[in-house]
This record gives sequence, C-alpha cells and structure tokens, in this order.
Amino acid sequence: MKPKLTLKKIAKELDVSISTVSKALRDSPEIGEETREKIKAFAKHYNYKPNNIALSLKNRKTKTIGIIIPEIVHHFFTTVISGVEKVANEMGYNVLVCLSDNSFDKEVLNMEMLANGSTDGFILSLAKETMQKGDYHHLQEAINQGMPLVLFDRVVDSIACDKVIIDDVAGAKKAVQHLLDVGCRRIAMISTVDYVSVGKLRTKGYKEALEENDIEFDENLILKIEEMEDSEKEIEEFLSNCEVDGVFAVNEHFAISAVKTLQESGKKVPQDVSVIGFTDGELSKRFIPGLTTVSQHGMRIGEESARLLIEKLERTPTEEDYYKTIIVETGLVVRDSTKSKK
Amino acid sequence: MKPKLTLKKIAKELDVSISTVSKALRDSPEIGEETREKIKAFAKHYNYKPNNIALSLKNRKTKTIGIIIPEIVHHFFTTVISGVEKVANEMGYNVLVCLSDNSFDKEVLNMEMLANGSTDGFILSLAKETMQKGDYHHLQEAINQGMPLVLFDRVVDSIACDKVIIDDVAGAKKAVQHLLDVGCRRIAMISTVDYVSVGKLRTKGYKEALEENDIEFDENLILKIEEMEDSEKEIEEFLSNCEVDGVFAVNEHFAISAVKTLQESGKKVPQDVSVIGFTDGELSKRFIPGLTTVSQHGMRIGEESARLLIEKLERTPTEEDYYKTIIVETGLVVRDSTKSKK
Repeated sequence: MKPKLTLKKIAKELDVSISTVSKALRDSPEIGEETREKIKAFAKHYNYKPNNIALSLKNRKTKTIGIIIPEIVHHFFTTVISGVEKVANEMGYNVLVCLSDNSFDKEVLNMEMLANGSTDGFILSLAKETMQKGDYHHLQEAINQGMPLVLFDRVVDSIACDKVIIDDVAGAKKAVQHLLDVGCRRIAMISTVDYVSVGKLRTKGYKEALEENDIEFDENLILKIEEMEDSEKEIEEFLSNCEVDGVFAVNEHFAISAVKTLQESGKKVPQDVSVIGFTDGELSKRFIPGLTTVSQHGMRIGEESARLLIEKLERTPTEEDYYKTIIVETGLVVRDSTKSKK
Repeated sequence: MKPKLTLKKIAKELDVSISTVSKALRDSPEIGEETREKIKAFAKHYNYKPNNIALSLKNRKTKTIGIIIPEIVHHFFTTVISGVEKVANEMGYNVLVCLSDNSFDKEVLNMEMLANGSTDGFILSLAKETMQKGDYHHLQEAINQGMPLVLFDRVVDSIACDKVIIDDVAGAKKAVQHLLDVGCRRIAMISTVDYVSVGKLRTKGYKEALEENDIEFDENLILKIEEMEDSEKEIEEFLSNCEVDGVFAVNEHFAISAVKTLQESGKKVPQDVSVIGFTDGELSKRFIPGLTTVSQHGMRIGEESARLLIEKLERTPTEEDYYKTIIVETGLVVRDSTKSKK
C-alpha cells in the first residue's frame, strides 16, 4: 500500500524544514517564492492535501479531544491529563494524548496528525523549542480554520485563544513572602532560562516580593538552569558559593537538589536554610523533610481546559466568538522545609 | 451535524453494557439471541459499522501506533511511554496515548476509537478491572481482524500476541534474597490483590526465596492492598501489629509509606528494619534514605514493545505469523534503606 504523504516526508524529500513546508503550503510570504512554488508543486503532484483541518471539519464530531504536552515523565503534566480526562469523560468525550518532547517539529507533526480527522479540538502546552523560536504559525492556522484550541501553563500572548494559566507572578511572590515572614533575608532563587515563560514570570514575582519588603535585589542570588540533566551539579556549585538563609526553587526537583546539597555541606533544613518549591507533586509530599511548595493544582488546570474546549465545541456557530483566560489560583502548602513563623 | 453512533451510545440507548453491545455485534453466543438481535437491528437501522478495524485495514499505514495504559500519574507507565516514543520516532511512527483509568469499559472504548482509522496497531497494559473480569474479547477481536497488538507488564496468558514483561517472580526473589543476605529473618511483604498479575507473581517469588533459605512462610506477614488511597493507613496498622526486620513492597509508594511508618514508630531504617521496593522511580532515588529497589526498566519495556509492534506492521503478509514474549530482566539498585551485607 502506498504510504500517505506527510509534512515530514515532503520536508525530507526537498531537504527543507517541516516549518518551511507547512508555511509554504499556506502561501506564507515568510518563505521565498521559488521555494514556495517548488513545495506546492511537489505536494500537488503527490496529491497531498494541506487542508486536513478543513476536511475534518466536514465530518466533525469525533467526540475526541487531543492534548499535546511537552513532557510525560512529569508529575504536573500527568495530573493535568487526569483533569482533562475527568471532565471530558463526564461530558462524553474521549481523550488522545501526544508528546512534543519539547520539540517544535514534533509539536507541528502532532497537530497535523490530530487535526487529520481524529479530534475536534486541542489542548496544548507549548514545547520549549517552540517558545524559543517564537514560531506559532501552526497554532494560528488551526484557529483560522475553525479548530478550537486551549493553551495551558506555557502559553503565549500573541495567540488569541482560550487559555488556562496560574498566576506565576503571584505564586512566586507568595512563596518569597513566606520565606520573608519566617525570617529569611538572603533568599536565593533557582530558576529556568528566561524564554520559558514561567521562569521569567516567577522571577518577576521574586523581585516584587523583595521590593515590597525593602530588600535589595542581588543578581548573584539567581541561578538560571538550562538543562535538567546538569541541574544537580549546577545547584551544588551555586549554593557552595553564596551564603543564603532561604531558597526559592521553580520546581520540586530543584528544591530537592537544594535540600540535599545543603544537608551534605553540613547545613540544616529548615534551621539554617528554609527551602520552598513550586508544583506540589509526590516528591514534595513524600520527601523528608516534607517540602513547603506553591501548589499548581494541575488537576484543576486540566478540568478547566477541558471545560473551555468542550464549551467551544458545543456552542452554536451563530454565537459570537470570544476568548477567555482562566487563572487558577496557586496555593501554599506549608511543610517542614521552611521554619515556622515567629 | 449528526454525531457518529458509537458503542457507548448504543449501550446507553438500549440500557445494556458496552461489553454486551460489542459482543452482540460480533454475534457472540455469550449474549442471548433476543438481545443480540435487538442490538444488531438497532445498529443496522442507524447504520453503525461494527467492522471499523477491517475498514481501517483497507487504508492502512497511518504510521501511527496507539498505546493504552491503565494510569498516567505513575512513573513506570510514563517511562514506558518515553521508550515507545523513542523507538517509534526513530522508525518514523507517531504515538497516540490513551488512558483506561483501570476501567474495562474505557479500555474497550479506547480500542474502538484508536482502531477507527487512527492507528496501525496497539501497545497495551491491561486495566485492573479487565483482569478482574477476565474478559478479553476486545483484544481477541482486534487480533482476529489483523490488528497487531503488543501487551506489556499486565498481560494475560490466554491471548496469543507479542508480549513484553519482566520476570516478576525472579525480580521479587532477588529482592527477598537481598534482604536475607543482609541478615533479615522476619520479612513482611506489602502486595496488591491477587487478580493483578504482578501482585500474584511477586508473592510467588517472595515465597520461593523464603523456601530456598529454609524460612517458614507466615501468612500473617503478607498485606494485600486493594485501593491505593487507603494504603498509608493500612500499612501503618499492619506494621504496628507485626514484628519484622525486613519489608518487601511491590511498589515504591508502599515502600515509602513503610519507611515513614517505621520511623514514626521510633524504628530506624535500615538499622532496625531494611526496606526494599519495586519500580525504580524518582521517589526511590530522591527519598532520604534512598530506597533500595528492584528496577523495572520501563524505558526498555517501552522500546521493546514498539520494536515488536513495528516489526509486525512492516512484515510482508506472506511471512508466517508467530508471537514473541520478551522478558526484560530486572535489576537491583542498592541504596540506603537496606543494611549493608556483612
């Protein structure tokens, strides 16, 4: 049987990127005319149908929604999936899950696959690489063709669609304020690189909390980690080179590495240094000492995302289109890695 | 637009179970003739096509494989997905993930959805409820219609298909032998109910290790947990009522609950009691004390499953059909929750 022609295959045959093929087929002026014509001619010759989304619209009501996440071995994203499943099932929908592995190409390919008649709409959290590139043409196109889309957690302002986020600035502020309340004065922050929106926003919250408490911001107290794999070593080096009495980490892995490093260097948590994390996963709960964390309520984020998407899918077409952003409030779970309030 | 008729809807309309509809449409003698005829007439009237799988075979080569797992907030299953993704992507396949939530009905519905032209074949780990019922007609049917299937981890002997498993008996034996080697003599086992195949097999390994070391088996040292939710309380009660110097738990959650309970009751781990778990996840690695565990190599299980399935998908139809079972060997990761060997 002849395998179906896909974006990937066209890209490979013509030795261009997937994004280039995708854009050329939509006649994007970003792609030079010669390349565009070549790609279009090739696709036409092999009978490739670029308008899969439009095609699938004709046979709508698969009663299935797709969710694309950047990582799967990750407690927050799995709880979001659980939340989506819960609401979707209650409302008679099936759920298909795809992974982008934080790759832009995989995100584009996943959307192509899911839009190809398998699903009625998407729930998506952006791949790291997509945010780094700032290339969102695949999302815009889905929306243009009438395919509803809900972004969660890792979202982007420039795309008009429904969104479910937490208030990262407020969450981080809450965490740092808690450290200040228990007496910390030199608070380190362990964050991610700035193009990951949450890293940037949480850094903003950190700064705001310090400012409101008249504590000077010190650039040297911020560590930005690019690769999860090297994080343990980086955190060890960072903490051995700065004297702190509090640590705010943007995820629980970083927080736990901080606790381990501090303990190994003879410091006591929380007596000498209080540590607070973000994302309330199994690790935080089960760790000894139990980790104080900002909880993201992944389950609720998933539930709200599914509700928004299904609302869109079931509205009558005459209703006017408008987009909502739902902000799920963060909580603070106080455990034993931070000192008690005086 | 008219929504598509699904098994679920027929079941709802006629007030029978999904399984009954599915079997009646395949003319199973398990279903009474009257019910069968009623269901078939209804389906025919509404133009329901029961042979979705056969239909999709005609347009094969979606270059997509489906994976159905019982739970998503679960480190082992997420690593299996990573392994499947890795090999599938290398070989040019996409992956769709579905959750059965340990429900038989959801497993059947997921298969219906995925077989409906979205995927070329399945990788599946059975839902708890499916194993409890012992109803595997949906798997048999997929196979009968030429849809390749690979079962992993939670498998069943009566279905002839490719399988990827670990040697649960040998893995458990290895764990218990390690406890015996470090001097434990009264070893408790924290397991799951017997209809979950892994619980049963690991109990067998536990017994064999004791027998080979001439230690009498004591029924009272085995705890079988039905619901994850109540596990902490059950483990606390169990351990406060039996004097032991070793604990073998069939997953890391149970192992960690055991460590916590023991510590809270004033016992030291590993000095007073050595604890060993199964599944080498983040929790085991990050916990203090680091947990000694039997590692299941989820990544490799996923990789082998994907390889088996894709082999089947790409074989020429003239080749003879035969099935393989791949046994992925378990490892023992020794950390600080067990005493050192003397």
